[in-house]
Amino acid sequence: LGEVSDLQKALQLLNWDQSTMMPPGGARVRGAQFATLARVIHERFASDETGRLIDAAAAETASLPDDSNNASLVRVTRIDWDKARRVPVELRAEMAAAEAEGYVTWLSAKAANDVGAFRPVLERHLELKRRYIGCFPEAAEPWDALFDDFERGMTAAEVRVAFDRLKEGLRPLVKAIAANPEAVSDAVLRQQFPVEAQDRCARALVTPWGFSSEQWRLDPTHHPFASSLSPTDVRLTTRYNQSELGTGLRATMHEMGHGLYEAGVDPDLVRTPLCRGCSLALHESQSRLWENLVGASRPFWTHAGPILREHFPEQLGKVDDDTLHRAMNRMEPSLIRVEADEVTYSLHIIVRFELEQEIFNGGLTAADIPEAWNAKMREYLGIEVPEPAQGYMQDVHWATGGFGYFPTYALGNILSAQIWERLLGDVPTLPDQIAGGEFAPLREWLRQHLHRHGRKFTPKETIRLVTGTELDPEPYLRYLTQKVTELYGAPAS
Amino acid sequence: LGEVSDLQKALQLLNWDQSTMMPPGGARVRGAQFATLARVIHERFASDETGRLIDAAAAETASLPDDSNNASLVRVTRIDWDKARRVPVELRAEMAAAEAEGYVTWLSAKAANDVGAFRPVLERHLELKRRYIGCFPEAAEPWDALFDDFERGMTAAEVRVAFDRLKEGLRPLVKAIAANPEAVSDAVLRQQFPVEAQDRCARALVTPWGFSSEQWRLDPTHHPFASSLSPTDVRLTTRYNQSELGTGLRATMHEMGHGLYEAGVDPDLVRTPLCRGCSLALHESQSRLWENLVGASRPFWTHAGPILREHFPEQLGKVDDDTLHRAMNRMEPSLIRVEADEVTYSLHIIVRFELEQEIFNGGLTAADIPEAWNAKMREYLGIEVPEPAQGYMQDVHWATGGFGYFPTYALGNILSAQIWERLLGDVPTLPDQIAGGEFAPLREWLRQHLHRHGRKFTPKETIRLVTGTELDPEPYLRYLTQKVTELYGAPAS
Repeated sequence: LGEVSDLQKALQLLNWDQSTMMPPGGARVRGAQFATLARVIHERFASDETGRLIDAAAAETASLPDDSNNASLVRVTRIDWDKARRVPVELRAEMAAAEAEGYVTWLSAKAANDVGAFRPVLERHLELKRRYIGCFPEAAEPWDALFDDFERGMTAAEVRVAFDRLKEGLRPLVKAIAANPEAVSDAVLRQQFPVEAQDRCARALVTPWGFSSEQWRLDPTHHPFASSLSPTDVRLTTRYNQSELGTGLRATMHEMGHGLYEAGVDPDLVRTPLCRGCSLALHESQSRLWENLVGASRPFWTHAGPILREHFPEQLGKVDDDTLHRAMNRMEPSLIRVEADEVTYSLHIIVRFELEQEIFNGGLTAADIPEAWNAKMREYLGIEVPEPAQGYMQDVHWATGGFGYFPTYALGNILSAQIWERLLGDVPTLPDQIAGGEFAPLREWLRQHLHRHGRKFTPKETIRLVTGTELDPEPYLRYLTQKVTELYGAPAS
Repeated sequence: LGEVSDLQKALQLLNWDQSTMMPPGGARVRGAQFATLARVIHERFASDETGRLIDAAAAETASLPDDSNNASLVRVTRIDWDKARRVPVELRAEMAAAEAEGYVTWLSAKAANDVGAFRPVLERHLELKRRYIGCFPEAAEPWDALFDDFERGMTAAEVRVAFDRLKEGLRPLVKAIAANPEAVSDAVLRQQFPVEAQDRCARALVTPWGFSSEQWRLDPTHHPFASSLSPTDVRLTTRYNQSELGTGLRATMHEMGHGLYEAGVDPDLVRTPLCRGCSLALHESQSRLWENLVGASRPFWTHAGPILREHFPEQLGKVDDDTLHRAMNRMEPSLIRVEADEVTYSLHIIVRFELEQEIFNGGLTAADIPEAWNAKMREYLGIEVPEPAQGYMQDVHWATGGFGYFPTYALGNILSAQIWERLLGDVPTLPDQIAGGEFAPLREWLRQHLHRHGRKFTPKETIRLVTGTELDPEPYLRYLTQKVTELYGAPAS
């Protein structure tokens, strides 16, 4: 497992390098390097030998408590191993090829709004995904087999309950912000901000959260992500927009949340498959918690306001904390998911989730997707999609076979608020600490209740450990209702 | 072979990252990541399966010309494979462990000038090297088995002939520079030069040589090296000294020479074991050619002088090309190899070579090395070694088992001058081109006569291709004699 981990980290480094450091000429062989590492990892991990070693380790660890590191390692590894062996190598290769081809076709199809060129990409992915689903006949619904790769043990049925309630609760909030678009202005963030100063400012914001050059990096890229080569080597990436400050600040705080999760895993789990965040939804709960519950909160801007004014005396020297806080929280229904505000973001996800349900559990075909997409955007967000590039073609995910994945974002939003309510119960002075620039108690609470466990427990077990309860959208709706009320006025009931 | 190449490039990236980008906290698991990649590469390459594939490929390529890419691939791979299998896995593991331990002990022993602490490191390496030599009983002399890993097919006997002549020819030159230490001053280079400006200046110097951000990187590190992830993804590293300009310029030009070799390999050889420079000596011939034959020549400073004055108007605005050229060529017998000038550098190498001969072909023990070292430094360079840290402990190489390796540096010097004489015969206007900042004809000549071949031919075959003759120290001695005469006056005969 240590060897597999080492190879996976080498693959992660190839990926990080490609996104941050590689000169363009490196692209010609990088694809082959990725494919080889992935194949070698799969061969070594999914081998008969690994199975024998798991059996032997299970015998040795049988008397250990279930929540011990070693018993957990054997338990989780056996499930990983079983899943890895259920999918034929040829199908994996076909899927990898379709991802690469899909990406290239998507780039040109999106640029040309060419629905016809993109349809075969989707059709190919849907065919391959159905074969993949066929490898897991025990799934209650076909889509569950896809989702299980991201949130092991969770199902469409559970997501549906949460999302139906979320959709219902968000409807009046969307109306409230759409009715009053001028209530909040982000004009102060729309000035010229030199990238070097943005970088210094972003570092000044996340350093008290736990960023240090001893164990972290922060580099610019096109599509920000966080990657850890070990809990003491965490690589954040972000992007800066010279003429708008909010994007870079939000991206950096978001990735810092991911990074803190990776940095907080029990060091005893290093070089094992347990040494990373539990699931995508739980990971997103951390990025959204630090980006929004902390970074977009009024107390935080008591601390952050002076830092921004110090780094941008010309642009922001006379802008007060309140104005900055409001600017960071401007909301408006819009077309592009990655630019969406806190209220509308989850609705973008629900559109994708419901379409995937209709595809895999119903009869929706690739040809039906564009119109079905536009209808849902109209219904949930009240906006018309002017072209496919701003509609169903906007994300790279479906183009590269990423089905069963989107819900994790909205689940992360829901969980972030559940965790926050529990945190406030345990640490009532948290808002004052944040206003005073004191983040260690928050970070340590998260480490203690979530980060240190890594992948030892299932997502549902982990959700219970960190929230004390089950998945529940009510805290998130309470949080958003309060925020919308404060900034945009009380929603009509 | 493509897979092995991909894994090797991942290993190279781990190494490049460690030396340039990795936060210190990454060191804790990086060693394990290196070890795993090295083991996986060895297992895959040295397998029975690879042997069967080589046999099958040999049958398929039997009718191809020897110098075709495919016939060369099979021929070279068979030798690589045979060598890889001759050394037991356990011995390789012991050597790797001894290298890691040796490095740590060397750091503290060197800091404390602790001969006693360092002796067991050397003794362990010598024991392991003798076992390694035992795997290759066909070697004419024991040391040849070590040297073969760096210069396949070359022997101590050949090196001895070249080095004996070199030693004899260098003796009057060393006397000439030692007799006249004030003839050349490098005072203009010993000022404060901000590192950012040095970086811009170094890029301005190597860009006309072929550096471009499309296919190259240049990053600072402690011990400069060049690494290529493909011929279109070349990573140079360099180091800057805030209070001395020459070190950074020389290091950048030196690594650029290595990088041009890697960038010039036939693109058809990508993802094969032939896609890199032929040997360390030939690689060094390129780094030294660009660093010295080009970068330390008077014509080059007609081109480079204005670039330096532009980047450092305060420090160098009034310094003329002649003064810069002379400053870059200051010579003086000194203790530290990596700081040595062109005349004395090869003598540092000869000291190490002769000691290694006495160790592996004679009776010199680890305990004898310090005194034997000091005696040779006195004899060849006329200087006294004040402490081991400036003597036999100065380099990391022996501490990490690097025996049989040092001669490649001096062979590179010799070859660089042989290549240069041939070049001047083919391109008599070369000095004028260089003075005019025109480097493409030089680069293309080297690509055509050397770079494109990669590892297709043996070092001796490749030397013949690029020099038109055998290894011959006379051109290097002619070149140095002329340079010393111009700068320090005619040596006494």
